[in-house]
Amino acid sequence: MASARRIYLAAFPEGMPTTEHLKLEEVPVPAPAEGQVLLRVIYLSLDPYMRGRMSPVRSYASHINPGDTMVGGTVCEVMESRLEGFAPGDIVLAGAGWQTHALSDGTGLRKLDPARGPLSAALGVLGMPGFTAYAGLLEHGRPKAGETVVVSAASGAVGQVVGQMARILGCRAVGVAGAEDKCRYVTETLGFDAAVNYRDADFPEQLAAACPDGVDVYFENVGGAVFDAVLPLMNDFGRIPVCGRIAHYNDSAPPPGPDRLPAAMGLVLTRRLTFRGFLQFDHLDRWEDFMRDMGGWLAEGRVQYREEIVDGLENAVEAFQGLLTGRNRGKLVIRVGEDPAAR
Amino acid sequence: MASARRIYLAAFPEGMPTTEHLKLEEVPVPAPAEGQVLLRVIYLSLDPYMRGRMSPVRSYASHINPGDTMVGGTVCEVMESRLEGFAPGDIVLAGAGWQTHALSDGTGLRKLDPARGPLSAALGVLGMPGFTAYAGLLEHGRPKAGETVVVSAASGAVGQVVGQMARILGCRAVGVAGAEDKCRYVTETLGFDAAVNYRDADFPEQLAAACPDGVDVYFENVGGAVFDAVLPLMNDFGRIPVCGRIAHYNDSAPPPGPDRLPAAMGLVLTRRLTFRGFLQFDHLDRWEDFMRDMGGWLAEGRVQYREEIVDGLENAVEAFQGLLTGRNRGKLVIRVGEDPAAR
Repeated sequence: MASARRIYLAAFPEGMPTTEHLKLEEVPVPAPAEGQVLLRVIYLSLDPYMRGRMSPVRSYASHINPGDTMVGGTVCEVMESRLEGFAPGDIVLAGAGWQTHALSDGTGLRKLDPARGPLSAALGVLGMPGFTAYAGLLEHGRPKAGETVVVSAASGAVGQVVGQMARILGCRAVGVAGAEDKCRYVTETLGFDAAVNYRDADFPEQLAAACPDGVDVYFENVGGAVFDAVLPLMNDFGRIPVCGRIAHYNDSAPPPGPDRLPAAMGLVLTRRLTFRGFLQFDHLDRWEDFMRDMGGWLAEGRVQYREEIVDGLENAVEAFQGLLTGRNRGKLVIRVGEDPAAR
Repeated sequence: MASARRIYLAAFPEGMPTTEHLKLEEVPVPAPAEGQVLLRVIYLSLDPYMRGRMSPVRSYASHINPGDTMVGGTVCEVMESRLEGFAPGDIVLAGAGWQTHALSDGTGLRKLDPARGPLSAALGVLGMPGFTAYAGLLEHGRPKAGETVVVSAASGAVGQVVGQMARILGCRAVGVAGAEDKCRYVTETLGFDAAVNYRDADFPEQLAAACPDGVDVYFENVGGAVFDAVLPLMNDFGRIPVCGRIAHYNDSAPPPGPDRLPAAMGLVLTRRLTFRGFLQFDHLDRWEDFMRDMGGWLAEGRVQYREEIVDGLENAVEAFQGLLTGRNRGKLVIRVGEDPAAR
């Protein structure tokens, strides 16, 4: 019997997840029943939100339970089909999770056209992270030309799109990242107006200098010290779309004091700020607009993107740890199986 | 020479302001120059925002300086006029501040019609506090029929209007106040669906019980323990218009830890909450709508209100201390001089 592999949640992690919590095992390749397809995973997307699914607390999506295969977006090839409309060799976007093979009844499958570009882009700039940037910036950031947009995790899957869109919209784009090469990348390759390394001791001063007219939109991906430095720079009527808080995903208890919540709410009031949490799937009515706009910007060369592709499902846990600590460079993708384009 | 009285800022207070910081003095009644009117103050509005004007920190309005007369909204009678369009005996809304007499060049003066009801209402339900409730609830709370609206400082000048408007809009209105008689007032007289005393030891449990379907809109007037208890009850897509934070106005340092900001931002993200600070004067384009709607609701008896009128400018400081600690019952107004309606 042919064998497949999967990574499942063995125990809820406190703090950083390791191979104690996320275990790899061999399983038989499943056989599709009538009305199902068998999928082979080519690319698996690794994204910060996955940390939340490993925590047994109320969140926007239910957590997974010990024994469950880790969830995740994937690009797959149909190997066998007992479902009308799908044939072997079809390439599909699917939520197959951290495994080499999966069954599907077709729910949520979307066919991809391999002629339209690299398949992995469907997990990044033309997929969920790109759409997150698009919906968050347009629906909640609402930047006007001439305003200053700051984005954290600026070289990441979402951040790199936010800053480039801000430039397209006529704004000053300032990126925050955690390494010198990331900062160079967003200014030199992506064309941000400025970038600041939050690990520098004088980061708050550098950020203030990079935002001489204050900050109108802060696209929040990280929380922590970056949020602290941006908040005092916010202009009246500034908007903070809250997309992620990766600095806190491994927190197991509230940090020590002082309690900064009252001061933050004081600024919300006196500067009439808006903090607004959002999730991309609340905005799926904008998906077609996104594909049209982003596809156009990519074709025109106005949006660039970077991916870090790691080979092998067995390296997913270490790669995910790197994502939570900022070791990745660009959108992180696991190549689980051969890309047909490489044949 | 006739004498007037004023209360001026003698020193920036840390913590609760006292007569050390706000000093009463006698001054000559000023004489109007050409183009000016002399005003006699009848009613002075005392409002929580005034605490901010006594603090030398950046805020939405510049603070006043030691030596300056305390600012404030007033209803006045024109005593002498050297300004076209105003005659002795006219009753006007003016920002004359904490004093018995003032000069004005007409800027910001609005004539009031004494036949339309009690003059003091122009400082409350038909004035800035009523408009604050109206603009904040409609523009930022945006409650839909059937939703639950919680308002803190529920028996205060703003809160009492918020809850009654929520009922008019078809919502469940839940008030939070700091005394049993205030809670009875908002349910029995104002018709809120429920009220909870935040000084009760089991306040969080009582509040949860009063909001069986969670909270869709929290109209924030106080901060502190009330905010803490409401936040976990917020429903997905809940809105928190931030109007005031009276529990913190005397804070001289951040409270001790733990730091609750990360947890609050976590809820903003996962529940897609909106925190939005606002000030009524950003919405003055809605003023005519407000006067029409609120005037109608008052005439129909659908909105009730309560005032606490304290006699004598010399009692303003003690009354203001009571406002910051919740001793007042309803909109707090100082009767500085005789109301012509009492003649």
